Amino acid sequence: MTAGTFRTEHDLLGDCEVPADVYYGVHTLRAVENFPITGTPISIYPELIKALAYIKQAAALANHELGLLDEPRCDAIVAACAELLGGKLHDQFVVDVIQGGAGTSTNMNANEVIANRALELMGHNKGEYQYLHPNEQVNIGQSTNDVYPSALKVATWFGILGLVDAMGVLRRAFERKAEEFSHVLKMGRTQLQDAVPMTLGQEFSTYAVMLGEDEERLREAALLICEINMGATAIGTGITAHPDYAPLILKRLKEITGIPLMTAPNLIEATQDCGAFVQLSGVLKRVAVKLSKTCNDLRLLSSGPRAGLGEINLPAMQAGSSIMPGKVNPVIPEVVNQIAFEVIGNDITVSFAAEAGQLQLNAFEPIIAHSLFKSVSHLRNGCLTLAERCVNGITANEERLRATVENSIGIVTALNPYIGYANATAVAQEAHATGGSVYEIVLQKGLLTRDELDQILRPEVLTQPTPLSLAPRAR
Amino acid sequence: MTAGTFRTEHDLLGDCEVPADVYYGVHTLRAVENFPITGTPISIYPELIKALAYIKQAAALANHELGLLDEPRCDAIVAACAELLGGKLHDQFVVDVIQGGAGTSTNMNANEVIANRALELMGHNKGEYQYLHPNEQVNIGQSTNDVYPSALKVATWFGILGLVDAMGVLRRAFERKAEEFSHVLKMGRTQLQDAVPMTLGQEFSTYAVMLGEDEERLREAALLICEINMGATAIGTGITAHPDYAPLILKRLKEITGIPLMTAPNLIEATQDCGAFVQLSGVLKRVAVKLSKTCNDLRLLSSGPRAGLGEINLPAMQAGSSIMPGKVNPVIPEVVNQIAFEVIGNDITVSFAAEAGQLQLNAFEPIIAHSLFKSVSHLRNGCLTLAERCVNGITANEERLRATVENSIGIVTALNPYIGYANATAVAQEAHATGGSVYEIVLQKGLLTRDELDQILRPEVLTQPTPLSLAPRAR
Amino acid sequence: MTAGTFRTEHDLLGDCEVPADVYYGVHTLRAVENFPITGTPISIYPELIKALAYIKQAAALANHELGLLDEPRCDAIVAACAELLGGKLHDQFVVDVIQGGAGTSTNMNANEVIANRALELMGHNKGEYQYLHPNEQVNIGQSTNDVYPSALKVATWFGILGLVDAMGVLRRAFERKAEEFSHVLKMGRTQLQDAVPMTLGQEFSTYAVMLGEDEERLREAALLICEINMGATAIGTGITAHPDYAPLILKRLKEITGIPLMTAPNLIEATQDCGAFVQLSGVLKRVAVKLSKTCNDLRLLSSGPRAGLGEINLPAMQAGSSIMPGKVNPVIPEVVNQIAFEVIGNDITVSFAAEAGQLQLNAFEPIIAHSLFKSVSHLRNGCLTLAERCVNGITANEERLRATVENSIGIVTALNPYIGYANATAVAQEAHATGGSVYEIVLQKGLLTRDELDQILRPEVLTQPTPLSLAPRAR
Amino acid sequence: MTAGTFRTEHDLLGDCEVPADVYYGVHTLRAVENFPITGTPISIYPELIKALAYIKQAAALANHELGLLDEPRCDAIVAACAELLGGKLHDQFVVDVIQGGAGTSTNMNANEVIANRALELMGHNKGEYQYLHPNEQVNIGQSTNDVYPSALKVATWFGILGLVDAMGVLRRAFERKAEEFSHVLKMGRTQLQDAVPMTLGQEFSTYAVMLGEDEERLREAALLICEINMGATAIGTGITAHPDYAPLILKRLKEITGIPLMTAPNLIEATQDCGAFVQLSGVLKRVAVKLSKTCNDLRLLSSGPRAGLGEINLPAMQAGSSIMPGKVNPVIPEVVNQIAFEVIGNDITVSFAAEAGQLQLNAFEPIIAHSLFKSVSHLRNGCLTLAERCVNGITANEERLRATVENSIGIVTALNPYIGYANATAVAQEAHATGGSVYEIVLQKGLLTRDELDQILRPEVLTQPTPLSLAPRAR
Repeated sequence: MTAGTFRTEHDLLGDCEVPADVYYGVHTLRAVENFPITGTPISIYPELIKALAYIKQAAALANHELGLLDEPRCDAIVAACAELLGGKLHDQFVVDVIQGGAGTSTNMNANEVIANRALELMGHNKGEYQYLHPNEQVNIGQSTNDVYPSALKVATWFGILGLVDAMGVLRRAFERKAEEFSHVLKMGRTQLQDAVPMTLGQEFSTYAVMLGEDEERLREAALLICEINMGATAIGTGITAHPDYAPLILKRLKEITGIPLMTAPNLIEATQDCGAFVQLSGVLKRVAVKLSKTCNDLRLLSSGPRAGLGEINLPAMQAGSSIMPGKVNPVIPEVVNQIAFEVIGNDITVSFAAEAGQLQLNAFEPIIAHSLFKSVSHLRNGCLTLAERCVNGITANEERLRATVENSIGIVTALNPYIGYANATAVAQEAHATGGSVYEIVLQKGLLTRDELDQILRPEVLTQPTPLSLAPRAR
Repeated sequence: MTAGTFRTEHDLLGDCEVPADVYYGVHTLRAVENFPITGTPISIYPELIKALAYIKQAAALANHELGLLDEPRCDAIVAACAELLGGKLHDQFVVDVIQGGAGTSTNMNANEVIANRALELMGHNKGEYQYLHPNEQVNIGQSTNDVYPSALKVATWFGILGLVDAMGVLRRAFERKAEEFSHVLKMGRTQLQDAVPMTLGQEFSTYAVMLGEDEERLREAALLICEINMGATAIGTGITAHPDYAPLILKRLKEITGIPLMTAPNLIEATQDCGAFVQLSGVLKRVAVKLSKTCNDLRLLSSGPRAGLGEINLPAMQAGSSIMPGKVNPVIPEVVNQIAFEVIGNDITVSFAAEAGQLQLNAFEPIIAHSLFKSVSHLRNGCLTLAERCVNGITANEERLRATVENSIGIVTALNPYIGYANATAVAQEAHATGGSVYEIVLQKGLLTRDELDQILRPEVLTQPTPLSLAPRAR
Repeated sequence: MTAGTFRTEHDLLGDCEVPADVYYGVHTLRAVENFPITGTPISIYPELIKALAYIKQAAALANHELGLLDEPRCDAIVAACAELLGGKLHDQFVVDVIQGGAGTSTNMNANEVIANRALELMGHNKGEYQYLHPNEQVNIGQSTNDVYPSALKVATWFGILGLVDAMGVLRRAFERKAEEFSHVLKMGRTQLQDAVPMTLGQEFSTYAVMLGEDEERLREAALLICEINMGATAIGTGITAHPDYAPLILKRLKEITGIPLMTAPNLIEATQDCGAFVQLSGVLKRVAVKLSKTCNDLRLLSSGPRAGLGEINLPAMQAGSSIMPGKVNPVIPEVVNQIAFEVIGNDITVSFAAEAGQLQLNAFEPIIAHSLFKSVSHLRNGCLTLAERCVNGITANEERLRATVENSIGIVTALNPYIGYANATAVAQEAHATGGSVYEIVLQKGLLTRDELDQILRPEVLTQPTPLSLAPRAR
Repeated sequence: MTAGTFRTEHDLLGDCEVPADVYYGVHTLRAVENFPITGTPISIYPELIKALAYIKQAAALANHELGLLDEPRCDAIVAACAELLGGKLHDQFVVDVIQGGAGTSTNMNANEVIANRALELMGHNKGEYQYLHPNEQVNIGQSTNDVYPSALKVATWFGILGLVDAMGVLRRAFERKAEEFSHVLKMGRTQLQDAVPMTLGQEFSTYAVMLGEDEERLREAALLICEINMGATAIGTGITAHPDYAPLILKRLKEITGIPLMTAPNLIEATQDCGAFVQLSGVLKRVAVKLSKTCNDLRLLSSGPRAGLGEINLPAMQAGSSIMPGKVNPVIPEVVNQIAFEVIGNDITVSFAAEAGQLQLNAFEPIIAHSLFKSVSHLRNGCLTLAERCVNGITANEERLRATVENSIGIVTALNPYIGYANATAVAQEAHATGGSVYEIVLQKGLLTRDELDQILRPEVLTQPTPLSLAPRAR
């Protein structure tokens, strides 16, 4: 190490002065210079740093078992990784989130930080790679091309778990409201036109059911990313890797992560394939599309307060306008809509990047990772925010809702089996033209008696399948 | 020509039996066999067939002037093209709309149909290419790589003209409604919450203005596609082309099409570049996005008839439901929304195809063409349908609209300059809590007199910038 | 029926003259007038027509069992549906593929064609709806809102089966080539740079494995669309439906289709939710992305013939150029690329349409259906075409491939464990600078002996994980 | 202000403790609590902060002229804005980049920071709003709904200027290389197949020309965002605004920004319309698509070093692999590809957000802003990086390139006019089959003499349009 505040490191471009106090080295530094794109370092994704630490730890253990790494070095690497898993040194992961090189710089950053921290733990100085080398020892039996996609999968697994939890929180919020509103009768709508009656509880239960299904779909997609390619090395042929290495590192990695990982049956395919990421992104898009639809509904149902539908009230979270006093806006659903729009855009980015892979590798995995990590974490934050700052505080305007049912033309649908589609159409048209009620017009036309109508139009009949109350007309 | 119902043609794959009565030849037939993808032939785009005819006609004239094509052959080609321009023989353009080969098969299809028809006009049989050869004469000085993109541009030009016309029809429909509804006061809304008053005429005028702007943008984008690359031949270097050929064919093509075409300054760039198509697709997406927003508004404003906003009525175009009698749905805006969604998807297809170009050519222009032609023609049909079958018949529920203004809290905004944002907020909150009117609460609180309120809340004051009616409070 | 060539039918807009010989009726005719968008009728999707027939048949049987439809009418409906299933009368399905109304017009079209054909079978004339009514009898217990999405699912199921079969054909073509090329050594590439050796067989096997995985994913996605909502009627509350109706129609529909259908647990949710379509579209996009990547590879590996990689030869399918004699282009992979670009665009259309659903229904299912049907059928045709017209005829340039390995710098990677990453880097750099071979430079530098090199660089060592041939250097 | 470290502020939700030392207030604080989405504050976009300062400054001046704001308050606001323009206090802009509320929180954040800083400049404490109120004075005559979109336009204007500059840097880098390589003959390629000769200079000049055209298109798109809606207030009707206010603030804003701004002719339309943003995003996508294509080409042309095309060499910027020694990858083009993929995804996000606008406002402008700002700044950084770290250092492998021309079959195209397409096809096929050269085969077949061939195949003839060297054969 040079005197003063720098140490000299070396790569194929020549010497390079690395600040003496940093844990990363020459390869990381080159990457920082090469990729001045977003200003955001990979350390914003702690799951990624931890995933790299898990893999480097498992690799050291496997290599030690194979006799390729002696005990002191193995112990030091394992200890350095443990510090990363504890949240330390994340600020040493400084490569830009958008980077060239297929993730090489991220892998190099990990190798260097771990090597330098391990060197310190072994009593050496940072940069004394003769005692422990980032590439020759921390990286033994590995290649960016197996480490990086495998790390993405481990990181994404934990990200999805967090998202599914947040979706559960939101689902339960909707379930509570569905219960609370189970007695509130309202008009259902199709194509924004009054249709037939339902309860507000039924309406809210659909949001819960949608989320529940999406949680299932995410769990299934998570299983797809459990297939890793450690042991593939450069292109999947396993060059330089011992035949026992792949099973050994898998075993270790499963133990320390608790994830039901498996080794891909065809490592060459697995090394170049981004299919699981594309599919996961597609499922995240599904979640986004449906969350957005739900937020659209919440904003519509709470429109008003006087000139809108005014069926429900969202809790006021902030002043809504710098000019319109007292205005309160649906800011929480709005922010979730926007997260959804971002996720849908991210999915296109993932598709483009995946399609652009060539031959034995996809060089564009860093933008796939960046897009997926954003989608997962923003959706997670959006679900929690929507539950806590919106759904939990929703109230219903019961009177208004009941009035719309009583006043509706749509209940004529329930008379179909008794008076036929043609008669019912005539009733509906007259109600529409005159402003009159369906009930009265049916009586007037002598189509049914008051008793029959009362029988047919009970709420419990209107909101679920029911045997005909009366004999249908002959057909 | 062989006896019986087939004639034998030849290409690099060997002999091929072509039905004796068809005007296309071996190259077209290979393409039909190679691309059994959609079942839809390129003849569904008559503008494309005509554009090809224009180009082949102009090329024949230019080559004749250069002494490369004798008069009888030139005349026959020109006459055959004239028939295509008159709408004849389009059914001979049988290659699939999705095809490999960068448009070669489309160009070959044109060369063959024109050659065979010209042969007939010259008194020969179809297939007697010794008298007039599809590639050696109809195609002199040309390559698919200049003919095809240039034809797409000519075809798209006419397509855009038609779309702009249709948008004008729709714009004028909105303008008429804006005039008709200019006196109808209503509540404006931001974020679906009641905001401040406006007129329904103002609301409809925005749809007209949006369309007018988009017509402008389309006209600008159309100018970008006036740059053709005839003379480029294979890759833009103009190999096999006479130096005078590019200016000559440009001159002829401008004369017969009436389009302000120009030759690209750098033909190599122009031959590989799809930028103008990407940009045009982006402008079509802009049109789609705004048309869709307009249709969303129409559907929302006409929601009801009783449990919705019920501000306007769309004309009934068909029964809305197979089960709900008398239900009428906004089917015309709905179909336009769906066209918009298709156009937005087409734009992604265009982007993908454009990005995939490599080196001196983009091999994926056929799908770009297919996507653009769909977007242009469906938008055109959508605009005409929306104008004629929806906007022209819209009526307003004036009473209901007026009531929402009188009953609104949002008019408190107009009091801001007189009572301040903080007081106004308190008034709004009280109105919201008690259900009372802004007018009464302001009087009650003694913030303004009845006269002052009347002065401030006149419709003409509420719906346009106005000098303060009264002195503002000291600040 | 009126005299002459028209019969008069009636709907809420009044009387309407329907051509006497057509099987559709007034509702269909209104729709044809309302949606002049693409010019393409829904009959281009025979699976959709058949799916509607299955559902109408099952509904008739269920309603008969419930005593809501007498035997003669039931028999006539069942027989009419059987004709549709046999491919008859499809030309009577004339509504545009892009249509407003949430599929109502498609359902009405089916009701009318079936009713009129059934009337004929019962000995009546078309239009004599007093004997059998399209809405009151063919549609009993149904709504567009359950029939249409259920029909889409049935149709898509069969579409996916066909696609998976086609993918299997393509997969087996790649498997045969993988076998054929298993002995052909070549350089693997990462980031388009020479990496380490592999076999051409290994390369082709990855394409097969990818397809196999995607077949699995499609089968899983198909299970998601087995959940139907028959019995939901208008909005999922089952209004007008008998409680036994949903299980009965499910039973019948499973019997006649053979699909493992199930009724959605929450019919209100199922009626508005398009999640399964979004996810299916996402999986189709995954298939498209990977097929496109495969085609990119095929085009790249066959680039040349002299100035490209020239590793493999695609079979010549047609003349490649109207100007460049003898040029043969990769037209089949190119057409598949373009199908992929279309599918990715379709996915965005599906996402937009799904997000735009409001409250109890998604009115935009027709464009979702159109997009999915296009994606499924074009991918299917693309896979078959790629297999038959390209992959089956691929040959390898073995000599050229072997030379690239012998001449490569990348084999230095195999020396890593013996001479270390730093030494290996120096060797690679010298080879690059001087044009020399790795073998010679290692000898020159005395890093390894000739025997050691021969041991390490055997093909079987280079293309799979192997225990170290020699003791590694001390670390 | 309360004692200790907090001051109490108030909004419609009640009291709120604001840290005593911060310049933002209650509205900002609520927003920070409401939108814990990305963790990234709006301060990462300095252009946005500056744009807000410009607008608030211009508004104060206009309001002062109208007699609505006294001189001391005006001066203080102007001075506080000047500090923001100087780069101070940006860390006080703490609202999340993804936020609900249509930008209200961003506008409120600006009002509060400016008010509190102005209060200090006036000798008061932060929070003493009785002397200067964020909403009642800093915001006079304004609404978020005119301030926010106008600020986005001002910010984007400066962003685009920066991007155009960076594109100019990249363009000139390509122009220098085009000059440097103007004598280097190589084979042009279409569909990745050898086509006809060109120079490497011609190839590089296309990249320069593309950029130049895109610079033009961006400048045009920038003009579209010069239309602002200041004076619109809440929905465009200008409620509470003095009729002279809009022209006055426009005048001031033009003076201090130097941007050729104009007031939208229809303020209601302008307040809800995001068309200009959609179009701008579309043009950014165009730039991205073409930059990506250029980077694809650079990666392809530099593939190798031995088993690839190996036509050019990109400068080595970092070690390319953690396992493959000496491997150098095209990391700079790769990072630019990924920026492009991000921009294309952002465009979809913008489209979704724009389409989701409802009635008089688009509530989703914050995600539009976030997406555009990312696209603009990342593209800018990508262009500079590509120029400096890649293009400037590119070298050509002249020998290899020349050999591919001499050895090519594609030069047969140049013989077309002399020997005809059919003969030329036969020559090409024989060359392909035998590996022989075109030159020899033509001689052998006696199609042309050696002199004639030499005449026809001169480089200057092959790479540009040229009169026929010899009389063409009779046709």
